Amino acid sequence: MAQEKMKKVVVIGGGTGVFVVLTALKNLPVHLSAIISMADSGGSSGVLREEFGILPPGDVRCALIALSHSDNKLLAKLFNYRFNESYFLDGHSFGNLFITALERITGDFQKAIREAGKILNISGEVIPVTLDNINLVAQLENGQIIYGEGAIDRQKEKKPKRIKKIWLQPKAKINPVARQAILTADFIIIGPGDLYTSIIPNLLVVGVKEAIKKSKAKKIFITNIMTKKGETDYFKAADFVTTLEKYLGKNTLDYILINTGRPDKKRFQKYKEEGACFVEPNVNKWGKATVIKRDLLREKGLLRHDPKKLRVALGEIILRDQSYGRDINS
Amino acid sequence: MAQEKMKKVVVIGGGTGVFVVLTALKNLPVHLSAIISMADSGGSSGVLREEFGILPPGDVRCALIALSHSDNKLLAKLFNYRFNESYFLDGHSFGNLFITALERITGDFQKAIREAGKILNISGEVIPVTLDNINLVAQLENGQIIYGEGAIDRQKEKKPKRIKKIWLQPKAKINPVARQAILTADFIIIGPGDLYTSIIPNLLVVGVKEAIKKSKAKKIFITNIMTKKGETDYFKAADFVTTLEKYLGKNTLDYILINTGRPDKKRFQKYKEEGACFVEPNVNKWGKATVIKRDLLREKGLLRHDPKKLRVALGEIILRDQSYGRDINS
Repeated sequence: MAQEKMKKVVVIGGGTGVFVVLTALKNLPVHLSAIISMADSGGSSGVLREEFGILPPGDVRCALIALSHSDNKLLAKLFNYRFNESYFLDGHSFGNLFITALERITGDFQKAIREAGKILNISGEVIPVTLDNINLVAQLENGQIIYGEGAIDRQKEKKPKRIKKIWLQPKAKINPVARQAILTADFIIIGPGDLYTSIIPNLLVVGVKEAIKKSKAKKIFITNIMTKKGETDYFKAADFVTTLEKYLGKNTLDYILINTGRPDKKRFQKYKEEGACFVEPNVNKWGKATVIKRDLLREKGLLRHDPKKLRVALGEIILRDQSYGRDINS
Repeated sequence: MAQEKMKKVVVIGGGTGVFVVLTALKNLPVHLSAIISMADSGGSSGVLREEFGILPPGDVRCALIALSHSDNKLLAKLFNYRFNESYFLDGHSFGNLFITALERITGDFQKAIREAGKILNISGEVIPVTLDNINLVAQLENGQIIYGEGAIDRQKEKKPKRIKKIWLQPKAKINPVARQAILTADFIIIGPGDLYTSIIPNLLVVGVKEAIKKSKAKKIFITNIMTKKGETDYFKAADFVTTLEKYLGKNTLDYILINTGRPDKKRFQKYKEEGACFVEPNVNKWGKATVIKRDLLREKGLLRHDPKKLRVALGEIILRDQSYGRDINS
């Protein structure tokens, strides 16, 4: 019997959410592509964007590390190392400088990512959603306009206003490599991650929504475990899906994966102080989509998705074989 | 017949001189160790020393690149890349930041070098001459004292004073790994390179001179092609050897390798403006040492030793077989 072709899985997002999903999937027999938002304008990435006029390297770095199969564990550690004793280098992630230097040498951000991927021995590929230099702009419910992902992401008011609308300025068009990956995918996974600053910025790029619609891939949305202050205050699972559909289009999702694992009060404390709440899993049915609700929470530490639990859940969908997820790394 | 054991060759120096010698030797069937001066306090290395309190990474970086066998040529290019568009990163060599970050992660400069060596796939090893944090101090002939390699290296007076004496402050002791390499070497090569700021700082480390004396290795000195303003003004080959012996001890050298290739006026122009002169090969006999005089000059570009010509000359001494040098890379 001929061997079945490896399923092609595209993960769309940015930040730590993508890291978790890629970590969950990287040892499954699938071909992984990570399509990464280019809207990041905070921290080390923001400074490097400003000084070098390059695309933001931070989220790309996280995805590369997640996909790394290098025997040299130090290399991944190095990529994540942040300088913190120097006036000049303070706060810069070494991996970001790595990608910046490679971009300068090759003159091509995408090539720089590919070369960094070779050095880190990644499986799969990391693809910028666009190669255009973009900025995220948000309009709040009171009409106020906020410029830049960094500023939107870090709204510090005690009672931040809801985001009414979000867009890119200037308009950006899809990276052809990202388009190709979406069109040929068997599965497209969106989220988890900061809804307005990591997920939706991908959908705002001209051509992305269209490619996702056109693609025969099954589309999976993973809702967040916690709300984020200034972005998704008081959001329940249904609000995540509704907001996503506002930018993605209705009746697009085939699966919605919702966490039901509830953290105990102690783990919850730090998040409460930051104004984050548990996302209530208040969705049971959603159009044509299959709603999967289960405990996806890490057993300890940060309130994030557990890569192993996520592997089981996604493995069931992608490989139609629950044993895949359970067998690996258990 | 049993295969002959690979000859152990130790190269002592700093800066671009070591780079040329290592490049010349790296494809010969010898085991190479580069012992590198830790006195560098200028440029990117100087800033990193100040901000992180680490040993200077710059000369180590050059040696690592010279010994790299990585198929990934971009990696060597990356290591040598210097940021030049950023207020914060300006002038920093990426390789220096690489070594600095590795030092911070491993907590050990020597380990950081080893790990960088693995990533660059080097053959041989790069060894800091000392693990102590040192500064170079020079007394000029007029009594003036200059602190720091950077300041000595960059004397800018139109008619700089000769250096009368040079020492380390505080005193530093030899790195045991460097000592072991010297003691077990078959050949020790000193120079070429800035005499007072790259070569002699190694000999000032307590234990180095003694280890060289004790070692049964044949000692080879390669004199410079050009003088350096503020360091070796008006020096002829004999002055290089005399000065070296002042710090190394007399009757130590077994071979002295002197360039006779004279650059044409055109190539010479830039050097003239910098106050550098051709080093006259005015040595024919020198104690017990075998004096080898030949054209070692690059055919074009900078007035430096040609790695291929140097390979032939050193190959004759080390392998007693001239064909070695000629065959490789010709």
